[in-house]
Order: sequence, then C-alpha cells, then structure tokens
Amino acid sequence: MGDKNGLKGGRSPFIYNFYALPRSGPQIEAWSFDVIDREAPPHSFGPDEWEVVRRMIHTAGDFTIMKDIRFSADAVPAGVKALRAGRPIYVDSSMIRAGLSLARLRSACVRYSPQSVFCHIADEDVARDAGEAELPRSIFAVRKAKPILTGGIAVFGNAPVALLELNRMIIEDGVQPALVVAVPVGFVHVEESKEEILSLDVPCIVLRGRRGGSTLAVSVIHALCTLSAG
Amino acid sequence: MGDKNGLKGGRSPFIYNFYALPRSGPQIEAWSFDVIDREAPPHSFGPDEWEVVRRMIHTAGDFTIMKDIRFSADAVPAGVKALRAGRPIYVDSSMIRAGLSLARLRSACVRYSPQSVFCHIADEDVARDAGEAELPRSIFAVRKAKPILTGGIAVFGNAPVALLELNRMIIEDGVQPALVVAVPVGFVHVEESKEEILSLDVPCIVLRGRRGGSTLAVSVIHALCTLSAG
Repeated sequence: MGDKNGLKGGRSPFIYNFYALPRSGPQIEAWSFDVIDREAPPHSFGPDEWEVVRRMIHTAGDFTIMKDIRFSADAVPAGVKALRAGRPIYVDSSMIRAGLSLARLRSACVRYSPQSVFCHIADEDVARDAGEAELPRSIFAVRKAKPILTGGIAVFGNAPVALLELNRMIIEDGVQPALVVAVPVGFVHVEESKEEILSLDVPCIVLRGRRGGSTLAVSVIHALCTLSAG
Repeated sequence: MGDKNGLKGGRSPFIYNFYALPRSGPQIEAWSFDVIDREAPPHSFGPDEWEVVRRMIHTAGDFTIMKDIRFSADAVPAGVKALRAGRPIYVDSSMIRAGLSLARLRSACVRYSPQSVFCHIADEDVARDAGEAELPRSIFAVRKAKPILTGGIAVFGNAPVALLELNRMIIEDGVQPALVVAVPVGFVHVEESKEEILSLDVPCIVLRGRRGGSTLAVSVIHALCTLSAG
C-alpha cells in the first residue's frame, strides 16, 4: 500500500511505538506534566500558581508564555473560593464554553451545571444591538452579563474590547468580579486591556502581551478546578 | 468610585479611547490584519498560503509560529476544492466544532450544515471503548470517523495520538483525506505525529513542533473559507 497511498520512506507507522507501550488519556496528561516540570526554566511561582502556569504551558505547547503570566496577589485563592461556591462563570467565546469540562467544574462544586456558564456572544439581541451601533458584539455580550459579573468569574480569551468594557464597568459601575481571567489575544487594544485590569483592585490572572486565546482561558479554569478539588 | 472599586491611579477607563474612534468587529479584524502585514518579517509564502498564515498569526498573537508552518505543495488548492465541494470535516475537539463558523463554511459551499462537521470525542461508545482498552478516547474517535475521512477534511488541534492513528490509517488502510490540518499541541508524541504526516503523500498544513491548538485549527479552516469564497 505504501507506494500508492503514501509512505514515501516505507517506515512502519509511528503509532506502533505507542501501542507497544500504551497509555490512557490521563496517563499521557501526567506524563506531559512530568515533561513540563522537568524542562521548565527556573521561576518564582508559588506551588498553587505553578499548577495554573503548567497547565497553560501544557495547553500552549510553549514555555515562553511563562514570562508573561501575572497573578494579582489574591488571584488563586479568590478563584478557588469562587469555584467552590459554584459562582457563575462568564465567558467571551463559544469555544471557551465548549471547552470547559462540566466534570472538572463539578469536582470543585457539585452545583455546577451547563446553566452556570454564561456566553452571550451569539445571542440575537447582542448581534442586533451591535449591528445598530456598529460596535463589536463582545461589548454588548459583556454588558448583558452585568447581573452575574459581581461575585462571578469573568473569562476573556478572545476579544480585548470586551475586557476593556468590563474594566470600565469595574471602575465606573461598581462591578466586582471574584476573579478575572484576562487572556484575550490579538493586535488591537489587547495589551492596553491587560495592563488596565492589572492596575485595578480586582483578583486577576493575566497573560501580558499579544498572546492568549480560548484554549488558554479554559486551561486556567481547569487548573483552578484541580486546586479547588484538592 | 475609584478608591472603593478599583482604579489605583484615577485614570479614565481606556475604552473611552476606543469609543472616541469606534470600530465594528469586521473593522477591527481588518485593522489587525493590516498590523500583521506591516509587522511580519520577510517570508516566502505565496499569496494564498499567506492568507492562511496571517490568520494563524492573528489567532495566536504571535509571529514566531511563522517559521514552523509547513504546507504540502498542493495543500491550499486541495483544501479550497474540498470546501467548495462541501466535503465533510472531521475535528478532534468540541472546541473546534464550536469555533467553526457555519457562515464562513457556507461562504465556501451553501450545502454546509452543522451535520457536516463530525466530532466523536464525547460520544458514549468512544468513551466506553477507550475505557475498556485503557487508551485515549481520541484514537477511537478518529477510527469511528473512518467512513468520512477519505475525501474529507481532517482537523487535529488537540490530540497527537489521534493524528498518529490517522497516519496509520493512511499508510495501512488506504484512507485518503482531501486535506489534513495537523496542529495538535503538547509534549508527548506531538512532533512525531507532525513529521509523519509531512512524510506522507497527503495534502497537509502543519505547525511543526510542540505548539498548536483548537483555535489555530479553526483559523486554518476559516482562512481556507476566505480563499474558497474569493
């Protein structure tokens, strides 16, 4: 079959190396964390912070994000407390909602359900308001979530403008999230949005600079679930 | 409110800079691509390949991925042809399924529907088989998709072991995808999975090394949709 379907070199498929020493999904994850712990450059993260950072590294496949991760002093305990209390979670993208594991959330608090996670980016009223105002939908999505933001966990992995609007709501409207996960990504207003949340008296976990994304946002919440279950 | 709710420095919220010169979501995206085109280091990607690469950069917030992106000679035209024909799309994570825009897919082919995207990672039979075999679910998910893989688009942003299993199916079982998007992420078998697909006679778009992820996988398909609609 090799000539016809593809193997240029005639080697045996690599996966037989894996089948010779098979591992389950959880075993592969544990192995990955061993590699990360062994290869990570020196750092000054505390043990609980490292649980978050190593899962972010695991998700990014990239140690260089380490230097850009910032925790407010109270961020990890605030996040753990909020998860154990089953506080609502606002997310700025459908990908984050799809990526959050209900089993992991329930390991922190059995009351978590799909209705605990709020995502308004695809709501019809949000799209209509954004179209009329010629502004990004993400601004109207975060405004719509205002009733659950105080005391809730706010997670941004996509749109920096929504984080900027949350920052305004914190400063001007008295909104006070239990934790803000601030890992939006991109090239316009992203760095400003992150520096601003770092300047506010709100527990936050931030990836400074342009990098970020929905998968990193999910990894932060999942790491906090691990700490909450422990 | 500043003292109580947070603004340490007493500045005005940054978003007023944005509201002073407001932009819609599509305008921000266009602005972002302008920044990327302007700041990108010299490269040898062709115009169609650059459409894919710049969207990957946009998604990662990171120019350093450029050096690791590889296209097989026929990858972009093969992907465009498959999308225009409405070929099924296999994805290895729920996040990719959630992130794929039906509007973008339909801009390539009006026949695309939610049922065109196949994701088996959360299927009960896949979980049961994986548990019994003590192997990752992703292996059984890709095996289950075998009927649609030949002629379809196979997208990997999460699990390298599933890509290894696809590689085996290409070599041994005669499976022949129209395009493989190979951007799994991690620290175990990831690099081997990518080097192997690059060695096969199958159209593929690959991010070499450990980096990757579901958001990057989505960005590749969306860029190919843009090219398909053009």
